[in-house]
Amino acid sequence: MSEAAERSENIPAGKGKEGIPNGGNPEKSKEDFDLASIYVSDAQYNRNIYFDTSPEAVRLYLRYNHWLAKVLLYFFILVDLSLALFEEPAVLPLPIWATMLVELLCLLVFTIRLAHYAKVIPRDKFWKDPKNICIIVILLLTLVDMIIYGALKATNCYGVRWSRVLRPLLLVNVTEGRQLRRAFRSIRNALPQIFYVFLLFMFSLLMFSLMALKLLGKRGLKTIDGAPYFTNYLEIVFDLYVLVTTANSPDVMMPAYNSSFVFAIFFILYILINTYIFMSVFLAVVYNNYKKYLKEEVRQLVRAKRHKMARAFAVLQEHREEGGQPVVSQANWNQMVRLVQPDISNAHRELLWSVADDKNQGYIGKVAFVQLVDLLNIEVITLKSRPHPLQSACPALYLSAPSRLLCRLVQHRAFVIVYDLIILVNAVFIGLDEENPMVSNSEWVFLALYLLEILLKLYVFEPKAFFSRHSFWNCLSTAQIISTRFDTIIVVSALIATIINSAMKSTGGYTSRQILDIVFILRVLRLIRVVDSIKRFRAIINTLIRIGPAILTFGQLIIVVYYIFAMVGMELFKGKVKFFEEDSTDPDKAFCGNTDLKGTAFAQLNYCKNNFNNVVSSFILLVELTVVNQWHVLSSGFVAVTHVSARIFFILFHIMVVIIIINIFVAFVLEAFFVEYSVDKSDLQTSLERKIEELELAVEQEKLEDNLVNAMETIDNDQGAGQPVDNRPALMFKIASKRYRTVDALLQRMFEADLDPEDFAENDDPDGNFANPTFSSA
Amino acid sequence: MSEAAERSENIPAGKGKEGIPNGGNPEKSKEDFDLASIYVSDAQYNRNIYFDTSPEAVRLYLRYNHWLAKVLLYFFILVDLSLALFEEPAVLPLPIWATMLVELLCLLVFTIRLAHYAKVIPRDKFWKDPKNICIIVILLLTLVDMIIYGALKATNCYGVRWSRVLRPLLLVNVTEGRQLRRAFRSIRNALPQIFYVFLLFMFSLLMFSLMALKLLGKRGLKTIDGAPYFTNYLEIVFDLYVLVTTANSPDVMMPAYNSSFVFAIFFILYILINTYIFMSVFLAVVYNNYKKYLKEEVRQLVRAKRHKMARAFAVLQEHREEGGQPVVSQANWNQMVRLVQPDISNAHRELLWSVADDKNQGYIGKVAFVQLVDLLNIEVITLKSRPHPLQSACPALYLSAPSRLLCRLVQHRAFVIVYDLIILVNAVFIGLDEENPMVSNSEWVFLALYLLEILLKLYVFEPKAFFSRHSFWNCLSTAQIISTRFDTIIVVSALIATIINSAMKSTGGYTSRQILDIVFILRVLRLIRVVDSIKRFRAIINTLIRIGPAILTFGQLIIVVYYIFAMVGMELFKGKVKFFEEDSTDPDKAFCGNTDLKGTAFAQLNYCKNNFNNVVSSFILLVELTVVNQWHVLSSGFVAVTHVSARIFFILFHIMVVIIIINIFVAFVLEAFFVEYSVDKSDLQTSLERKIEELELAVEQEKLEDNLVNAMETIDNDQGAGQPVDNRPALMFKIASKRYRTVDALLQRMFEADLDPEDFAENDDPDGNFANPTFSSA
Repeated sequence: MSEAAERSENIPAGKGKEGIPNGGNPEKSKEDFDLASIYVSDAQYNRNIYFDTSPEAVRLYLRYNHWLAKVLLYFFILVDLSLALFEEPAVLPLPIWATMLVELLCLLVFTIRLAHYAKVIPRDKFWKDPKNICIIVILLLTLVDMIIYGALKATNCYGVRWSRVLRPLLLVNVTEGRQLRRAFRSIRNALPQIFYVFLLFMFSLLMFSLMALKLLGKRGLKTIDGAPYFTNYLEIVFDLYVLVTTANSPDVMMPAYNSSFVFAIFFILYILINTYIFMSVFLAVVYNNYKKYLKEEVRQLVRAKRHKMARAFAVLQEHREEGGQPVVSQANWNQMVRLVQPDISNAHRELLWSVADDKNQGYIGKVAFVQLVDLLNIEVITLKSRPHPLQSACPALYLSAPSRLLCRLVQHRAFVIVYDLIILVNAVFIGLDEENPMVSNSEWVFLALYLLEILLKLYVFEPKAFFSRHSFWNCLSTAQIISTRFDTIIVVSALIATIINSAMKSTGGYTSRQILDIVFILRVLRLIRVVDSIKRFRAIINTLIRIGPAILTFGQLIIVVYYIFAMVGMELFKGKVKFFEEDSTDPDKAFCGNTDLKGTAFAQLNYCKNNFNNVVSSFILLVELTVVNQWHVLSSGFVAVTHVSARIFFILFHIMVVIIIINIFVAFVLEAFFVEYSVDKSDLQTSLERKIEELELAVEQEKLEDNLVNAMETIDNDQGAGQPVDNRPALMFKIASKRYRTVDALLQRMFEADLDPEDFAENDDPDGNFANPTFSSA
Repeated sequence: MSEAAERSENIPAGKGKEGIPNGGNPEKSKEDFDLASIYVSDAQYNRNIYFDTSPEAVRLYLRYNHWLAKVLLYFFILVDLSLALFEEPAVLPLPIWATMLVELLCLLVFTIRLAHYAKVIPRDKFWKDPKNICIIVILLLTLVDMIIYGALKATNCYGVRWSRVLRPLLLVNVTEGRQLRRAFRSIRNALPQIFYVFLLFMFSLLMFSLMALKLLGKRGLKTIDGAPYFTNYLEIVFDLYVLVTTANSPDVMMPAYNSSFVFAIFFILYILINTYIFMSVFLAVVYNNYKKYLKEEVRQLVRAKRHKMARAFAVLQEHREEGGQPVVSQANWNQMVRLVQPDISNAHRELLWSVADDKNQGYIGKVAFVQLVDLLNIEVITLKSRPHPLQSACPALYLSAPSRLLCRLVQHRAFVIVYDLIILVNAVFIGLDEENPMVSNSEWVFLALYLLEILLKLYVFEPKAFFSRHSFWNCLSTAQIISTRFDTIIVVSALIATIINSAMKSTGGYTSRQILDIVFILRVLRLIRVVDSIKRFRAIINTLIRIGPAILTFGQLIIVVYYIFAMVGMELFKGKVKFFEEDSTDPDKAFCGNTDLKGTAFAQLNYCKNNFNNVVSSFILLVELTVVNQWHVLSSGFVAVTHVSARIFFILFHIMVVIIIINIFVAFVLEAFFVEYSVDKSDLQTSLERKIEELELAVEQEKLEDNLVNAMETIDNDQGAGQPVDNRPALMFKIASKRYRTVDALLQRMFEADLDPEDFAENDDPDGNFANPTFSSA
């Protein structure tokens, strides 16, 4: 949550090194390997936890990092958050004792997890970490709130479950919420700058409002509802604030404009200054500050990573010759990599070693060892070439002339074009009325055609290569996934759904709306394939998919903010606005069951379902507020049923979400696209990729880069035709360099240009006290 | 208009150089100085005109560049554009013969200007320049259109003045419209990239529309008007396109959401993908491409500038010693600078020379000479220190103890704070009801207080320094203008207006609404002074003011696009929607005088004044469309009175203005702010500024930078008090480095980091063929 929290996530001072005699090469114990592998794995996933180095603590730490423990933790956080669905006001009401019991269980799990963490790290570090204090406070407050609420309910008093707003903060404060904490920290650091621009903006708003009051207030103008126009200063301020978001343009201007066109100049000037210039300045300030702080954090992250690798090196190091540089032998290295990444293939490990030990000495120095973490983070895909199973089963038939002609036909460009045309025709048929028997029967023809395509491809390409192709290809073109696995799944699902649908139709005459919906969605999704055919589209989509994981961090951020606002909103507005089903004949329907809403735009526009009556509607309403349009109508509805001060809630939400978070989101997408563009242009490769290429282990690299599809198909074809190709190794490696395993890797890539790749100064001082990013709030 | 047009704006091959004997130092003729000064002035203002170097052509060229000729040209362009006010449909109708006559006069002026240009540059260059061809074609087409229209009108037939859309293109194609042409060229070069993203966006839109049709079309849902919901594919596409602009959110979702909350997921997904991600990608693509091409253009611009300076050097050069490097003597230099910038002070010229000739040799080489253009473009302000006139007139009184105490009081920080408080109190009083006699009388008190402040400051500071202070200060803080000249004007005008107002009130009892409005506006404007007191605000406002001139280029761009759309819109929609005055009792008022509008949202929201009935309403309507909100209601109004295909006009406008131009505007503001931020941080100074500092001519530079106000006041105070300060020179120079005389200078500053400051390769090849920026459209 705070930088102080990160500050104490330190790594212990080089304990491992001290335990090793300077000259000798003692056998490394299992504990040593455990410790080293933890350091490497921490570096790989950028975990900054200052754990105890005693063997028991290391074992505990390994268990702490176990995937099952993490999944359980996230599961219980999810359960805790989703309790809002079952608590008053509920989507599915459950008795209070049930939700309370589940919440107690969640609290217990969080306490156990925290206790586990307390055992892993030294006691004094634990108590110095505001993150832990924060969790403890949240747990205690929740407990207190539950007891008070339970007591109040037992005596039939009115109680507020105020501790529910604290729940999403758990998501931020668990050890794994690093990226989320970083995002919050970046926002907090950017706040002072944003605040000054906001003040200036407010000054401009107040000035324009004053001018509007003086110019328009005394003219006796009327709004469209017949209310006096621009006579109340605070109302004008609110109206002009809404105008900045453009939500009430041009309505707010119309009465003045109808009176004289000169007043339009006032509003145009206002929009130019406040909407266009100030909002751009907000984006610029948010962008600039976010980038600045994020860059600094990433820099610190890289230094911490290298430092941890130096620690791992210190544990495993030995001395080949007296007084020489410490090194790590291949045997130790192998054992450690196996511990760090058990699923790595032997060939892949060998490749990594040969990259690290480029002089083939059997041991590597510190610099090469430190690079290991980057090597491990690069996804390397191994592909074994093997003949088509049909070829092995029945070579005579598979290698016959018609069979080879078929193979050639399927691999021809025309085959792709024909299928693109089929898809376009299909799109037209989908658009037509499916009640028409001709159209509904055509669906079977299209399904058959798609199935035929899959079968033909299976015949031509080796099945394993066909289905796993995406994992080999996504490095170059993630859109290619669509054309193989995704496409197959869609076609097969559509087939199954269509069969179920027609079976139900023919037997009972009843058509399930849900299944039909699924069939329609699957049919439309099938059309996405067309995008794959156009190279330019692929590039854009690949970029979008690549920045996907980072967008998820924003998703979490948004959910935390939404959850807090939803909880507060539900307490403030629950039950004030009622929704009546479409077929209801209740006369209250016209004003959403609240007479205060009679005649308001809220009721007229039938916004009754936009309410805070349960957590799902609250979230949807908050999305609508994020989209901004009509937010003044929505907020005025809730103001009408409560009090004018309810506006503060909506304005606060607008500032928090639209001005700050959405701008950061836009800034992030901009930055990520710029990186992708510049990478595409300069074809910049990391030093490691270059090394692998130098060693000529990345066979077919260039060929694949040029036109992977053709290259692959040529290879498969050659193979299918049984022509021996001598110079091709049995194993091929492909670097999935453009995919990032972690968001941190993407961030590092984004700021790579500003980072010195050979900055090992930190590593030369293994006992140095490494501190995590800290910023003064200035 | 096009890059080909710029391509031929060349500078002649080094003619001047050939005319000079290699070893001798002949006296330079007046023609030589004229030629050299033209080169320098062209370089200074980045004019790229390939003029003839014969003396007559040079004289003609000088006349061509005369400020009066340019002002006349712009005046006639303005007249030509504003003819739209008087032509049918007119704001102020004039007879056809009058507007036709004025237009003929304009055409004549443009023809003369073009003929003048044709005489200046070589014939073949003239005909190769598409810019000139474009002007000729526009002139001819306008003439043809006028004849046809005149003939049709004479026979009472219906005629369309279609050539009016060509008028703004003149603004683009005149020689001086360089920045505008560059903006258009950047847009055109970015179009292919934008086009691919747009295609992908359209694909996504069509896919989602298809899905919406299949999912929602068959459910028998109704919109709020009772119309069937999502049953027509084209309507869905339009509705979802509008949803991307967020203008119909959440209304378009409500019927589906009322039926089931599951459908909200569909719309949220749609908004996430199309509004947030695709619109960010549009901004990223526009930003990236605009920056890329602009950077390349600026690079070419800098090279052209240096090349022109090298030409000027070649004209003026002489040889001090046999076989030595050619140089330019101080005498020649002085004469040339006097021609280029007649208003330059001797001291300033001396300063420039001492910067260029840093070894004090009496002559400068090529490199120093080429830098001259940058030196001339830096605004240097000279300030002579002189005593207060009262001190000279009556030293005994002015230097007496009470007088000095008064001076010290006025210069005290508390004086500023007191006046800030007075302004805040004033703001409250302005907000109160001015009918109250106490409030209206308080206005006299405030006016007196403000006048007192001005008088006090005049007493303390030297009057000339007080009034011209802004020109000395704006280099550091443009917001300071507000506190001196601007403030004085506002206060004096307010005083005059208030006196007139009360005089009219007391004599006739009649209050002029216009004068009262002016009084109110002036009163509110007075409050802006508060901003000046806060340092952080000043920085932001200074940046905004600094990028002001560049924003004007966008203003021109917008006007060109608006004008074209307004002309087309007026032909399509004029008279279809009528506006009735507020007090009209005409029953047609309810539906804007067109029965097709009965019951539409357009009429219900009283949008009747948003029409294309004259050029002023058209422009205001286009502004409203640019702000986006309710654009679907506005467009549906015009669709109702014409045909559904009228939507194309509005969608085209949205794509052109909102997606492309507004994004470029945002990109420009972002980039300018980033430059300002990075400049503020690194305190980067150009090499020239550094040179001036090295020579210690920029006296008080640091002191002034730190706190100019205090420094200035201390100096004035010292002086006022008559204490001699020995080490202060009589002349002080201050570099207005942060103001840019031309937009080009700002652009150069923006991309400075990527430009090699010592790239003179072009200059070493004086006969080399220099080409202006050219880009393939790929």
